Amino acid sequence: MRPSGRNPDQLREVKITTNFTIHAEGSVLIACGDTQVLCTASVESRVPRFLKDKGQGWVTAEYGMLPRSTHSRMGREAARGKQSGRTQEIQRLIGRSLRAAVDLNALDGYTITIDCDVLQADGGTRTASITGSFIALSLAIEKLLDEKKIKKNPIHGQIAAVSVGIFNGVPVLDLDYPEDSEAETDMNVIMNEAGAFIEVQGTAEGHAFRREELDEMLNLAASGISELMQQQRDALAK
Amino acid sequence: MRPSGRNPDQLREVKITTNFTIHAEGSVLIACGDTQVLCTASVESRVPRFLKDKGQGWVTAEYGMLPRSTHSRMGREAARGKQSGRTQEIQRLIGRSLRAAVDLNALDGYTITIDCDVLQADGGTRTASITGSFIALSLAIEKLLDEKKIKKNPIHGQIAAVSVGIFNGVPVLDLDYPEDSEAETDMNVIMNEAGAFIEVQGTAEGHAFRREELDEMLNLAASGISELMQQQRDALAK
Amino acid sequence: MRPSGRNPDQLREVKITTNFTIHAEGSVLIACGDTQVLCTASVESRVPRFLKDKGQGWVTAEYGMLPRSTHSRMGREAARGKQSGRTQEIQRLIGRSLRAAVDLNALDGYTITIDCDVLQADGGTRTASITGSFIALSLAIEKLLDEKKIKKNPIHGQIAAVSVGIFNGVPVLDLDYPEDSEAETDMNVIMNEAGAFIEVQGTAEGHAFRREELDEMLNLAASGISELMQQQRDALAK
Amino acid sequence: MRPSGRNPDQLREVKITTNFTIHAEGSVLIACGDTQVLCTASVESRVPRFLKDKGQGWVTAEYGMLPRSTHSRMGREAARGKQSGRTQEIQRLIGRSLRAAVDLNALDGYTITIDCDVLQADGGTRTASITGSFIALSLAIEKLLDEKKIKKNPIHGQIAAVSVGIFNGVPVLDLDYPEDSEAETDMNVIMNEAGAFIEVQGTAEGHAFRREELDEMLNLAASGISELMQQQRDALAK
Amino acid sequence: MRPSGRNPDQLREVKITTNFTIHAEGSVLIACGDTQVLCTASVESRVPRFLKDKGQGWVTAEYGMLPRSTHSRMGREAARGKQSGRTQEIQRLIGRSLRAAVDLNALDGYTITIDCDVLQADGGTRTASITGSFIALSLAIEKLLDEKKIKKNPIHGQIAAVSVGIFNGVPVLDLDYPEDSEAETDMNVIMNEAGAFIEVQGTAEGHAFRREELDEMLNLAASGISELMQQQRDALAK
Amino acid sequence: MRPSGRNPDQLREVKITTNFTIHAEGSVLIACGDTQVLCTASVESRVPRFLKDKGQGWVTAEYGMLPRSTHSRMGREAARGKQSGRTQEIQRLIGRSLRAAVDLNALDGYTITIDCDVLQADGGTRTASITGSFIALSLAIEKLLDEKKIKKNPIHGQIAAVSVGIFNGVPVLDLDYPEDSEAETDMNVIMNEAGAFIEVQGTAEGHAFRREELDEMLNLAASGISELMQQQRDALAK
Repeated sequence: MRPSGRNPDQLREVKITTNFTIHAEGSVLIACGDTQVLCTASVESRVPRFLKDKGQGWVTAEYGMLPRSTHSRMGREAARGKQSGRTQEIQRLIGRSLRAAVDLNALDGYTITIDCDVLQADGGTRTASITGSFIALSLAIEKLLDEKKIKKNPIHGQIAAVSVGIFNGVPVLDLDYPEDSEAETDMNVIMNEAGAFIEVQGTAEGHAFRREELDEMLNLAASGISELMQQQRDALAK
Repeated sequence: MRPSGRNPDQLREVKITTNFTIHAEGSVLIACGDTQVLCTASVESRVPRFLKDKGQGWVTAEYGMLPRSTHSRMGREAARGKQSGRTQEIQRLIGRSLRAAVDLNALDGYTITIDCDVLQADGGTRTASITGSFIALSLAIEKLLDEKKIKKNPIHGQIAAVSVGIFNGVPVLDLDYPEDSEAETDMNVIMNEAGAFIEVQGTAEGHAFRREELDEMLNLAASGISELMQQQRDALAK
Repeated sequence: MRPSGRNPDQLREVKITTNFTIHAEGSVLIACGDTQVLCTASVESRVPRFLKDKGQGWVTAEYGMLPRSTHSRMGREAARGKQSGRTQEIQRLIGRSLRAAVDLNALDGYTITIDCDVLQADGGTRTASITGSFIALSLAIEKLLDEKKIKKNPIHGQIAAVSVGIFNGVPVLDLDYPEDSEAETDMNVIMNEAGAFIEVQGTAEGHAFRREELDEMLNLAASGISELMQQQRDALAK
Repeated sequence: MRPSGRNPDQLREVKITTNFTIHAEGSVLIACGDTQVLCTASVESRVPRFLKDKGQGWVTAEYGMLPRSTHSRMGREAARGKQSGRTQEIQRLIGRSLRAAVDLNALDGYTITIDCDVLQADGGTRTASITGSFIALSLAIEKLLDEKKIKKNPIHGQIAAVSVGIFNGVPVLDLDYPEDSEAETDMNVIMNEAGAFIEVQGTAEGHAFRREELDEMLNLAASGISELMQQQRDALAK
Repeated sequence: MRPSGRNPDQLREVKITTNFTIHAEGSVLIACGDTQVLCTASVESRVPRFLKDKGQGWVTAEYGMLPRSTHSRMGREAARGKQSGRTQEIQRLIGRSLRAAVDLNALDGYTITIDCDVLQADGGTRTASITGSFIALSLAIEKLLDEKKIKKNPIHGQIAAVSVGIFNGVPVLDLDYPEDSEAETDMNVIMNEAGAFIEVQGTAEGHAFRREELDEMLNLAASGISELMQQQRDALAK
Repeated sequence: MRPSGRNPDQLREVKITTNFTIHAEGSVLIACGDTQVLCTASVESRVPRFLKDKGQGWVTAEYGMLPRSTHSRMGREAARGKQSGRTQEIQRLIGRSLRAAVDLNALDGYTITIDCDVLQADGGTRTASITGSFIALSLAIEKLLDEKKIKKNPIHGQIAAVSVGIFNGVPVLDLDYPEDSEAETDMNVIMNEAGAFIEVQGTAEGHAFRREELDEMLNLAASGISELMQQQRDALAK
């Protein structure tokens, strides 16, 4: 039995609010149960130095948690003077995943920076960040197309992410914090609309997981991501 | 004429949402027009080293702006590896102001950390932070009293803050960003419920301001703060 | 009764030594009682990046305390690897105040950096820094004019600063350390030669201060600053 | 055809030199083709603060590349003043993987720090680090057992790691740098002696990978890791 | 011919002002020609962690240059966020040299920190720092003896320092900046009152120096240090 | 008697392995007894900013110790976020010494960075670094000459380094760690092939050393360096 009473293959309720803030070119508040992440996409007409004169644009991401987004207060990274290894790992993952859906040549001259700031955490903040960021990125690119700053839509695929894991011996979808902190295995899966993998990251927290467990988890992830992609399309259709 | 069409002595619309997030002992989203600040109060049963065995508790504050809370994206302080002078100045001001309303002896053994995170900025983020923080602090202290962790209410006064300035030669109340960026003088005023001053910080951005201008600005501030205090009491009464 | 035996409206003895060191374009040692600050003005023919091609020069300030300028030794900021919030707050204040007296257009192409290093501290180091810096800045600008590097004197006003406060219930001028550490209210006032305000920063350390106390403190500040300006003119006339 | 002429399921030649340096409790130089990593295990009789009085020991890892281990020189992380996100990601992975093979209760009172320093890089440095570290860790633990500092062998499993990927459309085992820099998909797999997974990290560098490609890669990894484990046992048997 | 017109074996004029500042237990302004260093000795009743329960005290030093102590302004180390290699090298040298004159057992329980802050630089700041620091240290220790906090004088020798070098092919004593910046060889020598060496650091800036040149330089240093020691004794006798 | 049984004037066994790694333009593993340092020379076609348009190339060095190169594990400098004063002192010394052997004009357009990484430490790592670096530098320059990137050999001298000291009252050559940690005096000497000095750094660790002791130590150093230079020539002749 899951602490939340959900079925093993059941997502938490997803709520997507577009244009949550006014300044960013794309702005989305995504809530997956009690996990809430504000994803903004900022467009700047410059490219990083390593892309100078390469005919490409760039998409990158930064991630942060508000100090009291969590059960007990965490030190503020700006005050401690550096981002933790976990933060860097997550923001590298978000940026890499989004770039897998974008033709950087069609974005020539522009950098889009996605900021994922966790307002409230209850497990799965990195996958919620990716799912929400794809929408924020799409909104910002729509704006670039509307303003005729770019000619061709650089987005060539849809991506979304979800966590799966093994909780009390049972593969489950979309772990919340009570599950995540107890899970024997935790896996983050990022897929595209064709059902192919962008990234798979599975970690045995307790004992090692067997091949058939891996297979079951991937099945759960595929079905969950397919639901999330419908929600993304609904949000963008508005 | 003010860009927003407001009268010189007119506050922006204030909206206070208590319990905006679930983990913090006190949590408030305060909106002053388009400025939105999330203020959380976190209680920890420890005191900073310099108060060891002094029979006192502590109240402190941290401040941050989300990278795209502003018109154009600002670098993330956690990524740059340090907090700017402006950030430190503001968080020192918030903490000092709140401590002026608290009897630290009655808070013995506890540290309350107020986090003010700006989700959206349109001028006056530091005064909105103080006005909102007072509510978050009050909620956290109510909880400590309810749980009988402390015996006596350490809050001995009510405080709120507002900005005033001289815009196009006219003293005005509660500057928004278009005014703030053009103002000749900018002043932040923090007062208590008795109409006395906790902090006054006035800066001539253009030319120096005269004594009678200072007097008019202080009158505007006093009336604005009195309105804000009513809003604070209404929010806490719910 | 003040610890020093001074009257409430009495400044400490001021001693201004120009050309205290040989390399800087302007160099002043200012002593306000036992507070001693070395202020140097350094001219460089460059402007910061944000002023590139704007037809303006720049004036900025840095502040530091020698580790043993104080009663007990403070850690060296260079060794700790960062400047404290207090240091940044003070150097931002000094720079902002000096710029209020300067026409930056007339300084096109030049940056003047004021370094205020406290050799000995006994209260009022930030106001002594501002009063002394104005002289160092003036000397450096005289040099630029003499060498015909600039055509027009960019200084369009005289500025000086002093602290006032409420000590044992009585408004007093120019607090020394024993007063400062006990004062109920502490206010730093920066004015120009016309008696208008450049900056007013008042903080209730104990209980809040009333409007009439504010008024009395401002009167004391105005008279003290007028005396300090005479000292500045005398020092520059030599 | 692979640049090295290897078959798709062929490992590079592995050379393991135990006791490569004299001071560490465990010291191994592992060469996988031209990739050479020095892994040392250092035993200290202390535990990190978060394990104080928990009856557990700790195993952790740090990773670094010598500046000229690579084709062109990389800046030294110690000189730049921080470890890159990639470095932190890798060392977190190494530590997590090793802990999956260790009963921390049986290591009570001790911290073993594994240092993986890349002397020469040609792809697969993180998996070589894990495979080599397991040997260094085992040597250090043998020493603790020999000296009767611990009673029970805390190692309850054998772990090794290898990379797999899709190169020119073909799943291949153990990518070298020319393959790695061109691969469409890159996956690091860490397994135990029972063929279960400790960690799986697959990233689509070019286009997304399909489920059947994932399956083939996992098969390759399983067979490669089984060979590597034989090498580990041989090295430890000496 | 030396730029200053001095003979090869002639020191610059030395001026030593004791008690230059009021707070430090020992305070000395030493001027060697235009080089001016403020040396303060601060006594604290604590020892560094590595000396806990070892029955020893500690003497250490920190060094800094005011930003405009030099011909052109240098960046402030506190602002840049780290001390340069040169600064660290110098402060390690000062501390090591002073400890060579002190019986740390007789200083049990106390740390004396010497701060050497260069107000004005004209070559030889590190040797002036050492010569001045010895006096500041002696004053602080006299105070500890007077207050009966320690029983036995921990100073068992007198030390002083001077630079020598080869300028235009001629060995010269006590280089000023014009000589130092052109010298082919630069050597810093620290000796005790018995004419033995505490530290010798010679560097060929242009071409390598021969054994007989080294010998001549050491002779010059010995005679210069003997003069400086007389000045130290005179200053302490006052 | 020396702990190693060596005669006072006897070097440890030296082993020089050229081309120890494959990527660097020059690569040398030097072993002086149990001290092992990997020295690599990396050529880049750029010059540092301060040499822009000066018609010169540059030679610089960086130094590091692997965390477990020593008896007990040292913290990794990259993890601590800064290089120690000792590290900076040593790398400045290595760079300065090598530049003394090089005509920088003949290296116009190129920077050669020497990385000295200590794999195993047993005293004398800085002198072994210098002796080994000279070989790595020579190999890299041979390569530049072979590829006709530079016309003239910029190396105009040979340099090597050794430590000498006073151990149990006796001057000895090439101290190992057991001697170094007990020595009363420790001196590092860098000389060229003509027997002239590039750098002399002598420090009294216990009591001060007399002139005749200095003379004896310099004699030992000269003879040791002459042997080391033969080894350098042999290694380069291969």
